[in-house]
Amino acid sequence: MLIVADENIPLLDAFFADMGDIRRVSGRHMSRKDVRDADVLLVRSVTRVDRDLLAGSRVKFVGTATIGTDHIDQQWLADNGIGFSAAPGCNANSVVEYVLAVLSLHAERCGFANGNELSVGVVGAGNVGSRLAEKLQRLGFKVLLCDPPRAEAEGDQGPEFVSLEQALQCDVVTLHTPLTDQGRHPTHHLIGEKQLAPLNAGQLLINSGRGEVIDTEALKARLKQDDAPLVALDVWENEPAIDPELVGLVWLATPHIAGYSLEGKVRGTEMIYQALSKHLGLPVRKKAGQFLPEPPLSKLTFTSTADEQKALRTALRVCYDPRADDVQLRLAMNGDAGERAEAFDGLRKNYPVRRECSSLKVQLKGAGRSMQESFKAVGFKLKL
Amino acid sequence: MLIVADENIPLLDAFFADMGDIRRVSGRHMSRKDVRDADVLLVRSVTRVDRDLLAGSRVKFVGTATIGTDHIDQQWLADNGIGFSAAPGCNANSVVEYVLAVLSLHAERCGFANGNELSVGVVGAGNVGSRLAEKLQRLGFKVLLCDPPRAEAEGDQGPEFVSLEQALQCDVVTLHTPLTDQGRHPTHHLIGEKQLAPLNAGQLLINSGRGEVIDTEALKARLKQDDAPLVALDVWENEPAIDPELVGLVWLATPHIAGYSLEGKVRGTEMIYQALSKHLGLPVRKKAGQFLPEPPLSKLTFTSTADEQKALRTALRVCYDPRADDVQLRLAMNGDAGERAEAFDGLRKNYPVRRECSSLKVQLKGAGRSMQESFKAVGFKLKL
Ligand SMILES: NC(=O)c1ccc[n+]([C@@H]2O[C@H](COP(=O)([O-])OP(=O)(O)OC[C@H]3O[C@@H](n4cnc5c(N)ncnc54)[C@H](O)[C@@H]3O)[C@@H](O)[C@H]2O)c1
Ligand SMILES: NC(=O)c1ccc[n+]([C@@H]2O[C@H](COP(=O)([O-])OP(=O)(O)OC[C@H]3O[C@@H](n4cnc5c(N)ncnc54)[C@H](O)[C@@H]3O)[C@@H](O)[C@H]2O)c1
Repeated sequence: MLIVADENIPLLDAFFADMGDIRRVSGRHMSRKDVRDADVLLVRSVTRVDRDLLAGSRVKFVGTATIGTDHIDQQWLADNGIGFSAAPGCNANSVVEYVLAVLSLHAERCGFANGNELSVGVVGAGNVGSRLAEKLQRLGFKVLLCDPPRAEAEGDQGPEFVSLEQALQCDVVTLHTPLTDQGRHPTHHLIGEKQLAPLNAGQLLINSGRGEVIDTEALKARLKQDDAPLVALDVWENEPAIDPELVGLVWLATPHIAGYSLEGKVRGTEMIYQALSKHLGLPVRKKAGQFLPEPPLSKLTFTSTADEQKALRTALRVCYDPRADDVQLRLAMNGDAGERAEAFDGLRKNYPVRRECSSLKVQLKGAGRSMQESFKAVGFKLKL
Repeated sequence: MLIVADENIPLLDAFFADMGDIRRVSGRHMSRKDVRDADVLLVRSVTRVDRDLLAGSRVKFVGTATIGTDHIDQQWLADNGIGFSAAPGCNANSVVEYVLAVLSLHAERCGFANGNELSVGVVGAGNVGSRLAEKLQRLGFKVLLCDPPRAEAEGDQGPEFVSLEQALQCDVVTLHTPLTDQGRHPTHHLIGEKQLAPLNAGQLLINSGRGEVIDTEALKARLKQDDAPLVALDVWENEPAIDPELVGLVWLATPHIAGYSLEGKVRGTEMIYQALSKHLGLPVRKKAGQFLPEPPLSKLTFTSTADEQKALRTALRVCYDPRADDVQLRLAMNGDAGERAEAFDGLRKNYPVRRECSSLKVQLKGAGRSMQESFKAVGFKLKL
């Protein structure tokens, strides 16, 4: 069996070498010739997979190690009996950790002894939003979910949902919707002048869903007014040619990397491995955890004098501190429009290896149950 | 023996309880009545010690747990046969760690894989400057010392010194002089328009000596021009009524807390304990290390996959991250002049407990000698 794969998919050998031969090609320049004799095609979002690429090939299964599927003509695959799988939610936990890190910076900034006294409105409760809500609840935050499509679909079966207006009254509002401009609940410019007007300086608005969910012009106007909310953006309208003025106006600015943990990338490979195994009727024996490299920092030891909130902040931040990405994005905004767009892409392409909290063992000497639970809720490995 | 002491001097009991009775009083409101029957007086910088306070008392020894002595009329003490000791250099290592933390943020900002390829001009090579220079040299930085008073006094005996002009050509210039306006080398407005003009955007200027060593108006003007250097200020002209515009123009702004580690404060007590023991002809048996509380974070474990520079940055920052102080000082600049000054003082008075790198055990699994040496140079306790 020949597997043709984007060379940038991590751990190809570890997962697939015993299933067949692997041919590695550049995802950006993948051609008909590259895939003609392939049985299986594994891609990332940079490869357009459609009739142009696959017509006349022997490909029987396509996997994309990404949550997005915009680059795949799924209809054509289905019409031609080609199996398909994406990796929905593979990097959801990475985004969750980005949000927790942002909240920890916010709490420190505001001088909260207990950052978790805040209410958080989670807009979009899918793979990312629902995982985030669960962790926040375990940490003691008051969480409100806003997800009209789910509310309609799940009715009395689902959890309690609130309206967007109610979510926007929370201390923190964090956006995790896809970008849609059709249907009953389009998200394009969901947050515009009207939604931004009532927000105040005590509130924090985070967007790590899709940039176009916020109206850039309306946000810039609001940020120039008095009593403007604090804003943290990981996603932007018109990436990579993002608005440098908006970067200057927001509190935290990062180049669409919330989901870029190594664990997230490896989970993407794991999910297409699982789908391919199922497609071929093979047992699923391997797990991502087996193949993850040892992290540079493996353990933190806190003593009984540690304060729960401060210790959590320290532990979160040694795993991921968004300020390092913020500094680089601001520096990337020097230069002309072309240079800025290139720099934005460059930061994403050359992103340093980032590990999730699960890579870190935390020893809590003499800590009470509440502190232990909080560390577990975030995702650290506890060592007693 | 009666020891009257400022209640805010840490570890009074631990060091002095077996020497006599301790009477704790408010340093700010210490009166003749409080000290009349004292044999020993222990103060901080908030108590003015002169004839007004001491005339007619039995005090035979005064100790100030501070490096400064402006609040003490040393002449009057000498004339009246009263022993005296301050604590020069007690918090020097705290300032050194502040500078190392600033350098680590700078290196990360500039994307240096090796932040220590920089040249550093240390202006003022006394207690702080000389300790800093030694650590930087061990870490591989190129260090130039500028200290005209020492150059004159030590001649060929001393190390090599450079002129201020030469120091100002380094990648980083860090100021550690006292404030003087007399003598052959006054430091008041040592850094003015002329010195700031040639600095460029690739350079970093740090001041944690005394605010008046830099001319605020000249610095503000320079920071509004093109190609301005990056500036980190811990000390300011006219504290606590500092210039809010200057805060807005500099890269890192902290409220004169570089020296505020717990270790520095405790070393202040230790030094006056040592001086008093000597004065009384008693043996010096106690050491500050015995009494330091267990730190909240006691240990970091790095694996063989750790990169030396990144690991050092992580370890430095879990001990001290100047950005937390920077955020608070910027927030304190809202409000009118009176509120700002009060907020500046408030940040200093209510400063959170900060521990030095020596409080942290670092385990470096499989690390080479160079990495071990670097961690030792900074001051971490290595655990192999
Ligand atoms: N910043 C990053 O690095 C990063 C990483 C991963 C995902 N994302 C983005 O985050 C978003 C969420 O990802 P996901 O995996 O959770 O997607 P998902 O499809 O699992 O969940 C999206 C949720 O949004 C809800 N939704 C749709 N329209 C809505 C509306 N008008 N109001 C409120 N909710 C609405 C849907 O019902 C769904 O529950 C996506 O846009 C994805 O591209 C970003
Ligand atoms: N930011 C803080 O929290 C903090 C903490 C401790 C000390 N300090 C300040 O740092 C400064 C240095 O402290 P220290 O304990 O090292 O003092 P120190 O007296 O031990 O050393 C000062 C050095 O500066 C030199 N010097 C004097 N004039 C000079 C000139 N014109 N050019 C160059 N060098 C000159 C002196 O010769 C001396 O070697 C002091 O002003 C002190 O108040 C600040």
